[in-house]
Parts: sequence; structure tokens; C-alpha cells
Amino acid sequence: MSVRFPNALMTLIRELGRLPGIGPKSAQRLAFHLFNRPEEEVRALAEALVNAKTGLTRCPVCFNVMSRGEEACAVCSDPRRERALVCVVEQPADLLAIERSGEYQGLYHVLHGALSPMNGIGPDKLTIDPLMERLADVREVVLATSTTVEGEATAMYLAKQLQERGVTVSRIAYGLPVGGDLEYADEVTLGRAISNRRPM
Amino acid sequence: MSVRFPNALMTLIRELGRLPGIGPKSAQRLAFHLFNRPEEEVRALAEALVNAKTGLTRCPVCFNVMSRGEEACAVCSDPRRERALVCVVEQPADLLAIERSGEYQGLYHVLHGALSPMNGIGPDKLTIDPLMERLADVREVVLATSTTVEGEATAMYLAKQLQERGVTVSRIAYGLPVGGDLEYADEVTLGRAISNRRPM
Repeated sequence: MSVRFPNALMTLIRELGRLPGIGPKSAQRLAFHLFNRPEEEVRALAEALVNAKTGLTRCPVCFNVMSRGEEACAVCSDPRRERALVCVVEQPADLLAIERSGEYQGLYHVLHGALSPMNGIGPDKLTIDPLMERLADVREVVLATSTTVEGEATAMYLAKQLQERGVTVSRIAYGLPVGGDLEYADEVTLGRAISNRRPM
Repeated sequence: MSVRFPNALMTLIRELGRLPGIGPKSAQRLAFHLFNRPEEEVRALAEALVNAKTGLTRCPVCFNVMSRGEEACAVCSDPRRERALVCVVEQPADLLAIERSGEYQGLYHVLHGALSPMNGIGPDKLTIDPLMERLADVREVVLATSTTVEGEATAMYLAKQLQERGVTVSRIAYGLPVGGDLEYADEVTLGRAISNRRPM
């Protein structure tokens, strides 16, 4: 086949295809969509990409995302937060999800991933060392990693390390999602919901 | 809730969320992915976006995508193509899919969409007028719009317009996909495959 797309288009399709969850077909569809959009809109996306990369950094305390030049992230610099309580999450998005619940008033620690030996992600690839270094005034660590295999393994690993250092460790509760129909719950979740039942 | 992400991150999430098929959750996930990638990689994507937008344009003959500054696209400028045969497709990606089949030696015409009155896409929003203006040396037009409701409506509309101008019009064949198991074919496709059966 001799006919192919111009280089500028092939390059864009290749770069879009590097994004997670975007396969070759989606990358092609996105590239054509952008080709058909006004130039201002494409430039706005390109600028947003560069600005996000150059204007953001990780909080030196909890590794949450923050604007470059600030001393600490919005949570760490809030004097009303309970500083003896630290909630460990995998990603900044998880932090925001917990904030939305309105149920948590402590600080956070963002691991930026979960342990996954299969993918070469060991403890040294996560922000576990800095977590161990900020335990001086910490009373309790809440492990809010995902309930996936990796998230569970990470929680187990951290629980052991933290307990050795004399810190109280808790794990977020398993159970039925609120508003969920019992018959649609998977059996593992349902089993956990029953064994973790609470007196009324 | 007082905690939110820095503006540079919110802007990136908003711009990514404008892309088709990318909802708020995916946009957030992509933004964090990019935040964690090396700056060169993010800049490469931003540059690819701007280069594709500024370096590409539509072929003045068939409206396929081509590098800006060229006189016609790779197909239109190829002297070996059969110029009396024009295949109408919705998108440049469809053109490439047909090229990959190796079964077609004519020219193309890219509509950049399909008729969809519900979404305000009438004949004036597509490249139908320029198609009618390039019929002088054209013997046959192959309608290769999608087999969706919009694609079928577009094919019907074009067939009528083209036949009034005395051009032979054909539609790509419906039938079973090659390598497809009969029991997995939907009944409409199977019905078409039977009524369009060919002597062996």
C-alpha cells in the first residue's frame, strides 16, 4: 500500500496513542476530530498540556499535586486539618474523591501507584520512604488504597511496616455501595458486607 | 468542599474532556498520567497537536487530509489511479481502510460527516456541492458511507442527486464479514447476505 497519511498526522496519531486507554483506532479518531476543530481549540489543549506540566509539582509533604512555587498543597497548608491522622491513597484523584465525601479531616499521603512486582513497581518506586519519615506526630494511618489485588498488597505491606513503628493502622471498610441493589453485588463484596456487619 | 486541584490541572482536565469519547473521569485520569510523565513527552504531544493543526489541510479536489502547501493529496496526485471512478466516504480514516484492502484503484471524495438532520447536519455541512462539481469525467460513483442510519440516509440522498446527473451509482456490498461465524451475525446482516447471494 503506497497511500498513507501525511507525517504531521501520523505523528499526532502516534503521540495520542501513547496515552493510557487510547488504542490506535481511538488515536486516529481523536486526531481527525482535532484536525476538524478550530485552531484556537487545538492550541488551547496544547497550552494546557505544557502549562500543567511546567506549572504543577508534587507537595513535598504528602506528594499531592500542587502549583509549582507553593510551599505545600491545599490540604497540608490548611491549619484546620487534624495533623495526627494520615490517609494513604494511590493517586491524587483518590484524595479528591475522599474530600468530596466530607467525612475526613486529617492529612493525606499520595503513593503515586500501588505495589506491582509483575510490572516492576516495588516499594522504592512509590513514596513509601517519605511516609515512614513523617510519622513523628502521627497517631493513626488510614490505608485507603484500592481494593484491587495491587491495592490490597500495598495495604498489607504498609500495615506491617507501620505497625513495626508503633503506629495505629486502619483500612477503609469493605461493604455494599450505598444505594446498591443486593442482587447485583458480587459475592466477595457481599461476603465482606456480612462478616463486617455492625450492630444497630 | 474547599480542597480542589490547582488551576493548571483543572484547565487541562477541562480541555481533555472536550475530546470525543473522553468523559470527566477519563480526562482526570489522562491529566494525572501526563503529570507523571517526563516533560519531553508532554511537549512532544503538545507540538504534535499544533503541527497537525497548522501543517495539514484538506485536498482541494477530494477533501482528503494532506500536508499544507501541496497541490493535491497522495491519491489525487497519483497518475496511476483510475480517474473516472470516485468512491465517496465519510472520513479520511475510511479512505485509508479501503486503501488497505487493495481492491480499489479509483479516486475518492471525503464528505467529512454524514447527513444527520437531528444534529443539524444538512447537505450544506458536507462536501456535497464540490462532489457535484467534479462529475465531468466521472463514469461511476461508489457510495461507501457507513451502514449506519446516517450513512444509509446519506447514500440514498447522494444516489438520487447523482442519478439525476446521469452518473452510474453503486453501493458497497452488505454481507457477512470474512472469517465471521454465521451464528454470531445479526439477523439484518444475515438477511442481506442471503438476499445478495451470488452464483458460484
